[in-house]
Amino acid sequence: MLEELKRKVYEANMELPRRNLVTYTWGNVSGIDRNAGLFVIKPSGVAYEDLKPKDMVVMDLAGNQAEGKLHPSSDTKTHLVLYNTFPELGGIVHTHSPYAVSWAQAGRDIPAYGTTHADYFYGPIPCARSLTAEEIEEDYEANTGKIIAETFRQRGMDPVHVPAVICRSHGPFAWGKDPAQAVYHAVVVEEVARMALFTEQIDSHAGPASPWILEKHFQRKHGPNAYYGQAGGASSC
Amino acid sequence: MLEELKRKVYEANMELPRRNLVTYTWGNVSGIDRNAGLFVIKPSGVAYEDLKPKDMVVMDLAGNQAEGKLHPSSDTKTHLVLYNTFPELGGIVHTHSPYAVSWAQAGRDIPAYGTTHADYFYGPIPCARSLTAEEIEEDYEANTGKIIAETFRQRGMDPVHVPAVICRSHGPFAWGKDPAQAVYHAVVVEEVARMALFTEQIDSHAGPASPWILEKHFQRKHGPNAYYGQAGGASSC
Amino acid sequence: MLEELKRKVYEANMELPRRNLVTYTWGNVSGIDRNAGLFVIKPSGVAYEDLKPKDMVVMDLAGNQAEGKLHPSSDTKTHLVLYNTFPELGGIVHTHSPYAVSWAQAGRDIPAYGTTHADYFYGPIPCARSLTAEEIEEDYEANTGKIIAETFRQRGMDPVHVPAVICRSHGPFAWGKDPAQAVYHAVVVEEVARMALFTEQIDSHAGPASPWILEKHFQRKHGPNAYYGQAGGASSC
Amino acid sequence: MLEELKRKVYEANMELPRRNLVTYTWGNVSGIDRNAGLFVIKPSGVAYEDLKPKDMVVMDLAGNQAEGKLHPSSDTKTHLVLYNTFPELGGIVHTHSPYAVSWAQAGRDIPAYGTTHADYFYGPIPCARSLTAEEIEEDYEANTGKIIAETFRQRGMDPVHVPAVICRSHGPFAWGKDPAQAVYHAVVVEEVARMALFTEQIDSHAGPASPWILEKHFQRKHGPNAYYGQAGGASSC
Repeated sequence: MLEELKRKVYEANMELPRRNLVTYTWGNVSGIDRNAGLFVIKPSGVAYEDLKPKDMVVMDLAGNQAEGKLHPSSDTKTHLVLYNTFPELGGIVHTHSPYAVSWAQAGRDIPAYGTTHADYFYGPIPCARSLTAEEIEEDYEANTGKIIAETFRQRGMDPVHVPAVICRSHGPFAWGKDPAQAVYHAVVVEEVARMALFTEQIDSHAGPASPWILEKHFQRKHGPNAYYGQAGGASSC
Repeated sequence: MLEELKRKVYEANMELPRRNLVTYTWGNVSGIDRNAGLFVIKPSGVAYEDLKPKDMVVMDLAGNQAEGKLHPSSDTKTHLVLYNTFPELGGIVHTHSPYAVSWAQAGRDIPAYGTTHADYFYGPIPCARSLTAEEIEEDYEANTGKIIAETFRQRGMDPVHVPAVICRSHGPFAWGKDPAQAVYHAVVVEEVARMALFTEQIDSHAGPASPWILEKHFQRKHGPNAYYGQAGGASSC
Repeated sequence: MLEELKRKVYEANMELPRRNLVTYTWGNVSGIDRNAGLFVIKPSGVAYEDLKPKDMVVMDLAGNQAEGKLHPSSDTKTHLVLYNTFPELGGIVHTHSPYAVSWAQAGRDIPAYGTTHADYFYGPIPCARSLTAEEIEEDYEANTGKIIAETFRQRGMDPVHVPAVICRSHGPFAWGKDPAQAVYHAVVVEEVARMALFTEQIDSHAGPASPWILEKHFQRKHGPNAYYGQAGGASSC
Repeated sequence: MLEELKRKVYEANMELPRRNLVTYTWGNVSGIDRNAGLFVIKPSGVAYEDLKPKDMVVMDLAGNQAEGKLHPSSDTKTHLVLYNTFPELGGIVHTHSPYAVSWAQAGRDIPAYGTTHADYFYGPIPCARSLTAEEIEEDYEANTGKIIAETFRQRGMDPVHVPAVICRSHGPFAWGKDPAQAVYHAVVVEEVARMALFTEQIDSHAGPASPWILEKHFQRKHGPNAYYGQAGGASSC
C-alpha cells in the first residue's frame, strides 16, 4: 500500500539527521496521496538508524490508522489538521533544529533580513501563539495544527508563499509540494534563523531588507516569470 | 566480573566523543549493579581511542576498588555519593560539554524555555552552589556529590524527573536508569543549554514556557498515560 | 571549448560545499580566459552532487551564451559586469556563507580587527549599498555588479588589494587571479566575518588593529618584498 | 638529521587541521632538541595535505637555517626568541583558531571562569600588548617573541604553569614539554576561549571561579601530589 510514497517519506526522514536538523528521534516527516486520501508518517520514537520504509504508518484524513503495526508520530494530529486545512500541502516536517527552536522559544517571528530568506519565504516566518491550558488539555496536537491555521488566516498569509511556521515554545513545522521539498524548506528555516540571530548581533537595530529586493528574489524563483534554475520556479529546488 | 556491565559502561563512554560531548579525556561514565552493590567506571585520564571494556574499574559502595589495575576516574567519589544518595540511579555521566559548562561558569540554572527541555526535564536544570575552601580541602570530589544531593533536597526536586545538574564553575553531571540513558540525558542538557543561550540572545527578556505546555510535554513522554514512542514513556529513549 | 578552464571552474565550484560555504545550490564560481574573451560559469540551480565539468556554461563579454545547453547562473550578469570593470580578475565566486551574509544583512563593512584579515584584505571588506527599486526593476543582476564597481571607485579601493565585497541584504562576492583563489578568498571572508562578530561580542567597543600591524601583515604576504611562503606573495595561496 | 624530532613535529602539525585549529596554512608547530641546540619547524605556506616529515626545516638557536631546502615558517623568529627565553619549552605552536583570535582582537586576557581552564592554566591566559610601529619595523617576528617574554616577566607568570598567550590583534601561541603537548594546549586555549565568550553572554557580569577551586583543579593534575591520570600530573596529557 502506497509503497512509492512510503519510500519517499522514509527518504525524507533520513535526510533530517544528514542535514543536522534532528538529535535522536526529535523530528518527523509525512507525505500525502491526495487521490487516495491517505498520508504516510514516521512511527513515534524510532531511531533513524533503525528506521525502514515498511515502518512508515498510513493514516486516513479522518485520523484513523489505515496500515502499520507501529504507533504513528505523537505529532500526527498536527499533520492531519494541516493537510485538511491546506489542500496545497504534499509533505510536512517537524524538527527541533536549534536556531528555529530558539526563535520559537523567544516568541518572535523570524524577520526577512535578506535574499536567502526571500528566495523561499515571502515575508517573515510567523511565530504561532501559545496554546491555552484548555487547548492543551482538550487536544494538544490537533490544536497545535489549528493555531497554525489560525495564524495564516488572521495574517492573510498563503502557506505556499510562506512554507513554514514556528510554534511558540516548541519549534518549526515546514511543508512543501512533497516530503523532500518540505525537508528542503526546514533546512532553509534553520539557516535563515541562524543568520537572523547573527544579523541582530552585528546590528541590534537591524531592519528587514527593502520590499523591492525581497519581492525581486521571491519572484525570480517563484513568480510567473521565474528564471532561476533550469525549468524555472520552485521546481528547481 | 560484571562483564556485561563493563561492556555497557564502555559503550556509553565511547558515545561521548561520537556525540561531541568531550575533548580529549574530559568525561566519564559509570554504571551500577544494585544487586551486587558494585559500580563500574572509566579509568582516569585514558584516551578514548585506547579504551577497552576490560579497562573499566569496579568499585564497591564504600568507595573501595574491587577490581581493575588502573586508577578510577578522579571524579569517582562524586559518582559514589550520588549512587548512595539516589537509589534510582543506574548510570551517571560527567562531561565538559561547552554550553552546559558555560551556564555552570555563569552560575545560572538552565531555564525551561520550551518543549525540547520539557520532554526530559521537569523544570529548570539546577546549578549547584560553589564549594567552600573548607569543603574543597576536606574532600573535593565527595563534597561535590554532597552539594548536588543538597541542591535536590533543598529545592524538593526528584532526580528522576530532573536527571541532571550543573556544578558551579565546573560542568554537568547527568544520570539515568542505565549508562546509555545517562549519556542520552547529557546530550539533551548540552542541546537545551545551547538553545537557552540563543533564546536569550533573541529576546533578552525571554521567560520560561507556560507551565501547561511544560507539564504536557513531560507527561506525554513520562507520565502514567505516556503515549510517546512505541512502548510509552521514558523507556523509548 | 575551454576544457581546461571548465575543469578549473568545476573544481572551484565543488570546493564550495567541501568548505561549508554553500547550502544546496546557493553559490556559483566563474573563471575567465582573457585572451579568448570568454568566461565559464556554473549552470543555474544544479545540485553540486550532479554537477559535471561539461555542464559549465561559456559566456562572452557582451553577455551572450557561447556554449552550453544549460542556463547559466542567475547571477551571471553580475560576474559579467565585474569582469568588464576589473581587468585584473581571473575568477569570481558568490556564496551565501552565513557570517558574511549576516554582515551584509546588518549593512556593515567587516572591520579589519586583526592579522587574519590583514593577511588577505588591505582594510575593511566593504558593504555595497542597497539597490533602489528602479535599479532592481531595470536590471537587478547587472546593477548589482555596477554598484560593486561604484563602491570601489568611490572609496578609491583596489580590487586586487581588497578581493571581496558584501552586497547589502544579500551576501559576499569574492575574486582572485583564478577560480581557485577566488574561492580561497571567499573562505577567508567567512572566517574573518565570524571572528569579527566574536570580537565585538567580547568587547563591544573593539576598534580595528593598528595601521602598522595591518600594513606589515599585508606586505609580508603581498608586498614587493613579500617573504611568506616558498615563492613569496599571493602565489603561495 | 633529527629524524625522530622531524617526525614528531610533522605529526603535531598534522594534528592542527584534525582538531579544526587551522584553515589552509594558518598555523605552525616546532619542536626542539635541547642537547643538539637545534629546533625543527614547519616550512612556510605549505598545504597540510602536501606536507611530509622531510619537509621540516632545522634551525639553530642563533636563527640560522641548519638544514632543509624550504623556507621556514614566517613566524620562526618568534619561536626562536621563545626557545631562548624559556628553557623549559620543548614545543611551540601558533594558530589562528577563531575564538582565541577573537579574544586577541578584542585585546583581553581570557579569564579563568572554571575548572576546564584551571585544569591546564594557572590563572588567566594573558593578552600580550600591541607592537609599536618601531617594533614592527625593526623586527616584527622577533619582537613578537620579546613582547611575549615581557608579558610573562612583568606579570611574574611561569610559562610552565600558563602554557599559552594571545598576541594582541593576532592570535594564540601555546607550548609544552614537546610538540604534541603544545598542540594539546592550543586545543584547550580554543575551547576555554569559546566557553569564556559563552559565559559572558549568559551573565555579562560573570567573574572568575573561586581561587580555591582553581587551585584545586590545577594541583590535582599538576601539583606534587597530583592524582589525575594513571601516572599523575601533566604527563597524563
